[in-house]
Amino acid sequence: MTQFNETELTTAVIRSFDQTPDPRAKFLLQELVKSLHDYVRRTDLTFEEWDHAIGFLTRTGQKCTDIRQEFILLSDVLGVSMLVDAVNHRDRDGATETTVLGPFYVGEHKVAPHGTDISASLPGERMFVQSRVTDLTGKPLVNVPVDVWHADDDGFYDSQKPSYATEGPSSRARFVTDADGRFFFRTIVPCSYPIPTDGPVGQMITQTNRHPMRPAHVHFLVNAKGHEPLITHVFMEGDKYIDSDVVFGVKDELIAKVERRTDPDMPDGQRSDGPWHLMSYEFHVKPG
Amino acid sequence: MTQFNETELTTAVIRSFDQTPDPRAKFLLQELVKSLHDYVRRTDLTFEEWDHAIGFLTRTGQKCTDIRQEFILLSDVLGVSMLVDAVNHRDRDGATETTVLGPFYVGEHKVAPHGTDISASLPGERMFVQSRVTDLTGKPLVNVPVDVWHADDDGFYDSQKPSYATEGPSSRARFVTDADGRFFFRTIVPCSYPIPTDGPVGQMITQTNRHPMRPAHVHFLVNAKGHEPLITHVFMEGDKYIDSDVVFGVKDELIAKVERRTDPDMPDGQRSDGPWHLMSYEFHVKPG
Ligand SMILES: [Cu+2]
Ligand SMILES: [Fe+3]
Ligand SMILES: [Fe+3]
Repeated sequence: MTQFNETELTTAVIRSFDQTPDPRAKFLLQELVKSLHDYVRRTDLTFEEWDHAIGFLTRTGQKCTDIRQEFILLSDVLGVSMLVDAVNHRDRDGATETTVLGPFYVGEHKVAPHGTDISASLPGERMFVQSRVTDLTGKPLVNVPVDVWHADDDGFYDSQKPSYATEGPSSRARFVTDADGRFFFRTIVPCSYPIPTDGPVGQMITQTNRHPMRPAHVHFLVNAKGHEPLITHVFMEGDKYIDSDVVFGVKDELIAKVERRTDPDMPDGQRSDGPWHLMSYEFHVKPG
Repeated sequence: MTQFNETELTTAVIRSFDQTPDPRAKFLLQELVKSLHDYVRRTDLTFEEWDHAIGFLTRTGQKCTDIRQEFILLSDVLGVSMLVDAVNHRDRDGATETTVLGPFYVGEHKVAPHGTDISASLPGERMFVQSRVTDLTGKPLVNVPVDVWHADDDGFYDSQKPSYATEGPSSRARFVTDADGRFFFRTIVPCSYPIPTDGPVGQMITQTNRHPMRPAHVHFLVNAKGHEPLITHVFMEGDKYIDSDVVFGVKDELIAKVERRTDPDMPDGQRSDGPWHLMSYEFHVKPG
């Protein structure tokens, strides 16, 4: 039998993967065939549309470089990245919610002393961040490395700027929790920023009348021994894009009220030059 | 509301495309989101698997060049190309079945006189092809350009070989039907051949224990005025791979019995040097 009607064709393609040695790979490929074929049948996809899809995927692959991953961006704006996050973190048991890692994590950061101003060289409104890491019972976790990073006042990460090669990291550091599970640092208030719009994914966002913005946030990667690594953001309450993050990364629990303060003393007793902001957030991590 | 559970996330992503100006694009994108999300939920896709998929798509895009289209190959081996063909050709009304164009069509061919040996310079068993083009009532169609092309005895198309640039086309020509809708030419018996296996798609075929072969065939593109262009193949009956074409392109009606002949006269009256093969096939095209 070689002649296939639409349904028999799908069966034949599924069967062609029957001899796949790895059972999980076999399952994933056969389910992929079902999904793709179902899509084509449901939409009565035309040759022109198929051709457009081939061109889009090709351009997306060709936009990728060592420092640019356009397929991850595509996964992000289609909500696939957050869904993969969701299905892999079904039971939080009170642990802090997770969100996307994003493309601007550059690997383990350099340790900085508590209180360091990680954006010392940058213009922007000043912010004091105080935080604590505990387990699910509220017990403080000591000596936990926490990587933090965020965008500058113009919406760029240090690694996106040419100065990164010569001047090194900025708005990016690692802190290690003290005996009470605490760490704190100074920085500027982060800004909302657009995902890169100069590629096929940005073009799709524009052509579909979506905006390319992410609400302002600080990234945290909490890596406590004997616990699940926690990859998350803390978002700034009141951000214009808090309800329409282009990558669907916001979760209610991850939104922090950031207070504007005018008192002269900051939480670590140091004086402030002028008004400042206070972000307070506590992380709870799962054993694992 | 920013917090999404798995289902709400899908709803939010679908809604994000609500302002797409083109209604068909909006439909296609929203259905795509449904299919992708359904796939991730159904398979509980892990981060490692997602990461593998991102890498595979990236390598596939980066394998593409002006003369190599790895995403079309991916579509072909997943049966998607043949399915798009099927949903766009639901009512044949007696017209000849269609199949994939394939990556080796190079645009309009040069016209050759009837009887030409289009593989004159190539080793291989000799074949005489006689054919006719009619409408659905059996009326012969006059003056119809028909492009034909096929692989050589080693399984390569002319355009895959370095000699193509200097020596020009081989096993590739255009014939124009006569007053009785007929055309005929000489060539060699085509061979079964593998799809390119030096890229990510070939790697997938290998890793899943599929073979990369297409059964032997001649491509035909029949372009009759006032009729649907007919893109198809004629396959050689008895080919080892006729039931397991790696791109699922075979249809029963497209298989021709190719007879081995020992009589000295070929159908156009010319003498043959030795044994030869006869392929006879009639094409019926739809108004459109
Ligand atoms: Cu925010
Ligand atoms: Fe970010
Ligand atoms: Fe072919």
